[in-house]
Amino acid sequence: MKSAVEALEEKGRAVKAASRRMAYLSTEVKNQALHNVANDLLIKKDEVLAANQIDYKEAEASGMNAAMLDRLLLSSSRLESIAQDVLAVAALPDPVGEMFDMRTLPNGLLIGRKRVPLGVIGAIYESRPNVTIDISVLCLKSGNAIILRGGKEAIRSNSALVKVVQEATTKAGMPDGAVQFIESTDRALVNHLLKMNNTIDLIIPRGGAELIKFVNENAAMPVISGGIGVCHTYVDKSADVAKAVAIALNAKVQRPTVCNALDTLLVHAGIAQRYLPLVAAEWAQAGVEMHCDERALSILKANSSLRLVPATDGDWGKEFLSLVAAVKVVDSLDEALEHIERYGSGADEAIVTEDYSAAMRFLNEVDAACVYVNASTRFTDGGQFGLGAEVAISTQKMHARGPIGLKELTSYKWIIFGSGQVRP
Amino acid sequence: MKSAVEALEEKGRAVKAASRRMAYLSTEVKNQALHNVANDLLIKKDEVLAANQIDYKEAEASGMNAAMLDRLLLSSSRLESIAQDVLAVAALPDPVGEMFDMRTLPNGLLIGRKRVPLGVIGAIYESRPNVTIDISVLCLKSGNAIILRGGKEAIRSNSALVKVVQEATTKAGMPDGAVQFIESTDRALVNHLLKMNNTIDLIIPRGGAELIKFVNENAAMPVISGGIGVCHTYVDKSADVAKAVAIALNAKVQRPTVCNALDTLLVHAGIAQRYLPLVAAEWAQAGVEMHCDERALSILKANSSLRLVPATDGDWGKEFLSLVAAVKVVDSLDEALEHIERYGSGADEAIVTEDYSAAMRFLNEVDAACVYVNASTRFTDGGQFGLGAEVAISTQKMHARGPIGLKELTSYKWIIFGSGQVRP
Repeated sequence: MKSAVEALEEKGRAVKAASRRMAYLSTEVKNQALHNVANDLLIKKDEVLAANQIDYKEAEASGMNAAMLDRLLLSSSRLESIAQDVLAVAALPDPVGEMFDMRTLPNGLLIGRKRVPLGVIGAIYESRPNVTIDISVLCLKSGNAIILRGGKEAIRSNSALVKVVQEATTKAGMPDGAVQFIESTDRALVNHLLKMNNTIDLIIPRGGAELIKFVNENAAMPVISGGIGVCHTYVDKSADVAKAVAIALNAKVQRPTVCNALDTLLVHAGIAQRYLPLVAAEWAQAGVEMHCDERALSILKANSSLRLVPATDGDWGKEFLSLVAAVKVVDSLDEALEHIERYGSGADEAIVTEDYSAAMRFLNEVDAACVYVNASTRFTDGGQFGLGAEVAISTQKMHARGPIGLKELTSYKWIIFGSGQVRP
Repeated sequence: MKSAVEALEEKGRAVKAASRRMAYLSTEVKNQALHNVANDLLIKKDEVLAANQIDYKEAEASGMNAAMLDRLLLSSSRLESIAQDVLAVAALPDPVGEMFDMRTLPNGLLIGRKRVPLGVIGAIYESRPNVTIDISVLCLKSGNAIILRGGKEAIRSNSALVKVVQEATTKAGMPDGAVQFIESTDRALVNHLLKMNNTIDLIIPRGGAELIKFVNENAAMPVISGGIGVCHTYVDKSADVAKAVAIALNAKVQRPTVCNALDTLLVHAGIAQRYLPLVAAEWAQAGVEMHCDERALSILKANSSLRLVPATDGDWGKEFLSLVAAVKVVDSLDEALEHIERYGSGADEAIVTEDYSAAMRFLNEVDAACVYVNASTRFTDGGQFGLGAEVAISTQKMHARGPIGLKELTSYKWIIFGSGQVRP
C-alpha cells in the first residue's frame, strides 16, 4: 500500500506539472472555470450538503461549541452566497500577462516585466469549509495551481467541494491536477508538506494563531499570513469631534473580533475633556470596557455608567479581539507617533484631525501596512479596497503588504525581444 | 566590558531608530549624501589606501591566492571608479514616495499605495571591499538603513570605507546610526545577526556559494541572494546561424565565471549539421570544452581541433562557471522546453529563432527570471537592464525576480485619505 507521504509527493508532482500549463492559460478559460464552479456548486448542492451534514453531526456529537459548529455548517443559502462570491472573482480583471516597465534600450533590446503566476500555492486551513472555495478561486484566477489541506472536522465537506472544483475546472480546460486536496488528516503530513519548497512556491495558513505560528516557524517556503493587528486611532487636538466619535465607535464595535479593529485610542490632551466623555458614552452603550491611563480615568470617572478599568503596562500593544479598548491621553502628535512606533504591529493606524500638517506627518511617518486619515481602520480589506476578495492581510514588508488579492498572488518575469544583441 | 553580542544589539537599536527617519528623508538629502560619499572617497583616499595596504600585506603573508588578493586590492584608480559608480546611483530616480494604484472609492475614500523603504537591510559579504560602498549607496538611496558585516581579510579597508560613508552621509543630514558596521570578526556574531528579524527586514549575502547557503538556511528574516544560474540557449531550426553563433559565443565566453553565462546549448536537429561546426570552431578558439551528447559528438568528431568530451547525465543542469558547455541536439521546440523545465534553475534562458510562433511560445512557456529571444543571456544585469546598479540577481519568485535595484529594495504602504468614513 502506498504511504501517505508517497501519495503527497505524487500530488506534488502533479500540481507542479499542472502549474506550468496554468501559467499561460487564457483569461477566457480561467473565467469559464470559475463560472462552472459557481454553477456546479448549486447543481451539486445536495451532495455537498449531505457530506457537510455528516461532518456536522460528528462534530456536534464530539461536543464542538456552537460558534465552531456554525462556522462548519453549510446550507443552500450559504452555497448560493459562496457561488456569488465565485462569480465576483470571475468578474475581476486577470492580473496575469500585464506588461509593465516595457521599453527599448539604446542597443535595441525591447525589455519589460510580464506578470506571471507564482506557481503552486499551498493552503492549510481550519474548520470553515468555504475557505476551500475562496482560496481555490483566487489562486486559480491568478493562474496558480493549488494544494489544499483542510481541517479534520470538515474533511467530508471539503472533499465534496474540491470534487466540484476539480470537475468544474477541468471541463473548462484547466489542466488535470491543478487542484490537489490532501484527504489524509494525519498531522505528520503537514510537516512534510511544509518542507516541499521545491514544489510549493507560497504557503497560506488560514486559521487560529497557533496554526499561523506553526506554519511560519516550520515552512521551508515563503508564507503569507494575516498577522497580529494592534491598531491605534489617534484623535488629534484639531479633530472634528463628531467624526472622531463615529470613527472610534466603528473601529471598535463594528466587528471587534478581527485584526483591523481598534485596540488603543490615543487622545490629545487638548481635546480629551470634550471628546472622551462622548466616545465613552457611545462605547458604553455598545458594551465596551475601557482600560484607561490616569488622565483618561480622571476625565471619565464621574460617569458611573461606564465600564472603566485602570490600564496596566500590558494593555499597550495588546490585540484585544473583543469589546475592550485601551485609552491614553497624550500631549502631542509626536507622543502619539512614538507610542505607535513602540506598540504598533505595522497593521492599521489612523489619525483623526482637521490639521493638514498633522495629517501629512502621520501618513509619512507611521510605518504600517495601512495608514488612515479620518476613517475607520475597519476598511482594511481586499473587498473594501476595491481589489476584490483576498486570501489574507499581510503585515510583512516583502512582496506585498496589506490585502493579498489576485495581483499579490503573482510574480513577474523579464522578457527580452532581441535581434542578435551580444554584450560588449 | 561590553560583550560583542551586546554591542551588536546596540547597533541594531540604533539602525532601527535611524531607519524610521530614513523613510521620509528628501531625495535632495539622499543625493547630497551620495555626492559627499563620492567626493570624500577621493579626498580621504590616502587613509583608505593605507588601511587597505595593511589588509593586503597581511593577506599576502597568509598565503592568499593571486585572484583573491586582486579582489582585495584598492588603488587610486579603483577608488575613482567606485566614486563614479556612486555618482551614477545618485543620478538614478528615487523610488521612494512613488504613488501607484491611487483612486477614489465609491464612498469617497482616496486610496493608493506609496512606495517606502524596506527599513533595515543587513549585508554579509566577503573579501571585495568595494561591496561596502556598492551596497551602502544602493540601500541609502532607496531610503534604507544598513548594517554591514564584511570579511575578516578586508576588515581595515571596510572600516575605513564605512567611516567615509558615515561622515559623508551625516554631514548631508542623514540620521546618525543609519550606517552600522560590525567590526568584530567573531563568526558567532553572524549567527546572532541572522536571528535579529525584529530589527533587520532583509538580509543580502554577497559572496561564495557556501556563504549564501549558510545565510539562506539560518536567517530568520527574508533573504535575497544571487542563486545558481543554469542557463540554456536553444538554437531553433529556423535560427539565423550567424546570430546564433555570435550569441552562443558571447553567452559562453564573455565572462564565463558568472551566473548568467551559458551552461547548456540545445540545438534543433534540423540545423545542427550547419550550426554546430561553426559555433564549435569559435568556442574552440576561445578555449571552450564541449560536453556533447551522442548526436552532437557525431557531427563534430571529425574536427580534431575541438575539445570534445562525451556528456554524462551530470552535465545537464550543471552550472559550469568556466569555459565548459554541455551540448545537446533536440528534435523539437517541445523537447527543448521540456529540457529547460527539467534542468533549468529559473534564471536566464534564451531562444535563437526567426520563427515568430516559436519565439512567442518560448517567452510564454519558459518559467525563468529572464527569458530572451535572439540575445545573449549575459545581459541579465541591473545596469544592462537600465535599472542602474544592483545588489543581487534574484531567482526567487516572491517580492522581486531578476536584478535587485533601487525599486526592488522598497515596499509600499497603503495610504487612505478619508473625511469621516466608517464601515457599514
